Amino acid sequence: MYEGPVQDLIDELGRLPGVGPKSAQRIAFHLLTTDAADITRLQSALQRVKDDIKFCEVCGNVAADVRCRICADPRRDEAVICVVEEPKDISAIERTREFRGRYHVLGGAISPIDGIGPDQLRIAPLLTRIAEPEVREVILATDPNLEGEATATYLTRLLRSFPDLRITRLASGLPVGGDLEYADEVTLGRAFSGRRAVDA
Amino acid sequence: MYEGPVQDLIDELGRLPGVGPKSAQRIAFHLLTTDAADITRLQSALQRVKDDIKFCEVCGNVAADVRCRICADPRRDEAVICVVEEPKDISAIERTREFRGRYHVLGGAISPIDGIGPDQLRIAPLLTRIAEPEVREVILATDPNLEGEATATYLTRLLRSFPDLRITRLASGLPVGGDLEYADEVTLGRAFSGRRAVDA
Repeated sequence: MYEGPVQDLIDELGRLPGVGPKSAQRIAFHLLTTDAADITRLQSALQRVKDDIKFCEVCGNVAADVRCRICADPRRDEAVICVVEEPKDISAIERTREFRGRYHVLGGAISPIDGIGPDQLRIAPLLTRIAEPEVREVILATDPNLEGEATATYLTRLLRSFPDLRITRLASGLPVGGDLEYADEVTLGRAFSGRRAVDA
Repeated sequence: MYEGPVQDLIDELGRLPGVGPKSAQRIAFHLLTTDAADITRLQSALQRVKDDIKFCEVCGNVAADVRCRICADPRRDEAVICVVEEPKDISAIERTREFRGRYHVLGGAISPIDGIGPDQLRIAPLLTRIAEPEVREVILATDPNLEGEATATYLTRLLRSFPDLRITRLASGLPVGGDLEYADEVTLGRAFSGRRAVDA
């Protein structure tokens, strides 16, 4: 359809998540007519990510060093470990400013359909970390979907063997700012079963 | 928020058209966890576009050579020139397989608000091409919006001075597959004024 290099760029862009054929075409034609310096900046940003980004040896988060910024920060509470599926979940939680503990990235969730079992996840290093005496709570913050719930259930069973360890799961309920009538029945059901007394 | 190189990549991706902050973040984290070979392929696709893509000296379309594939193709009808705003409009028209003539890319549309007047568009080379005796029709295929209509009107006045030149504009009307009740009044009005006799 297009001149070779343009079509190749459209194909490569179309492989990115959330970029359909139309968006890929739009981005490619934008890059064609844009300043060459813009392309160079994008290329070098890609290069730096390839060269400089590693994964934290403690928690598995993306890191510019052997440890990520959070694991390297002595002010973060070592007593609480929040278990997430992916590094991007950490940034979502960090934005809330509600959590001052440490993280552990599993690298996914148990999903037999995708061939992902517990052995593919970073569960062994999590157990090693939890064995440390200062850890008092593990928050299971896997996604509130089928795979995330299965993973949380699996981990709960595994972690029960640790004495005096508090195991918690993020609350399910109505999203703030949402409409009650548009909530699905499972979410609304969870909102009922998890209801709290109002501070009078 | 993120480790330096990750944030830089998110920023660069967020500059692309149609890529918001959320998508940029999603793409960046995809690239972080993907095979490094995927990043390399994207980088070299960008490099080839930067190195190999020029603009056709005749029509202004993107080209891998001094002339684009269409201008270099002797089977394309020289008698009809279809005037478009951008190279991407050419690919949209090519997909219809309705048109076998040549193109001319203006490089935009007249838009006083963006400081784009006739002098910023490739109108002079268009006049040179139309002066050739074999050209018998110019199809004005600028966008059916305010700027595109203004550009078409401007060009119509300019081209009237050429004797025996047919000047046409793409038909406006109801989009095929659309719902009449959702058409805006201008489009519906155009569909009425442009109505055709049904072949009995």
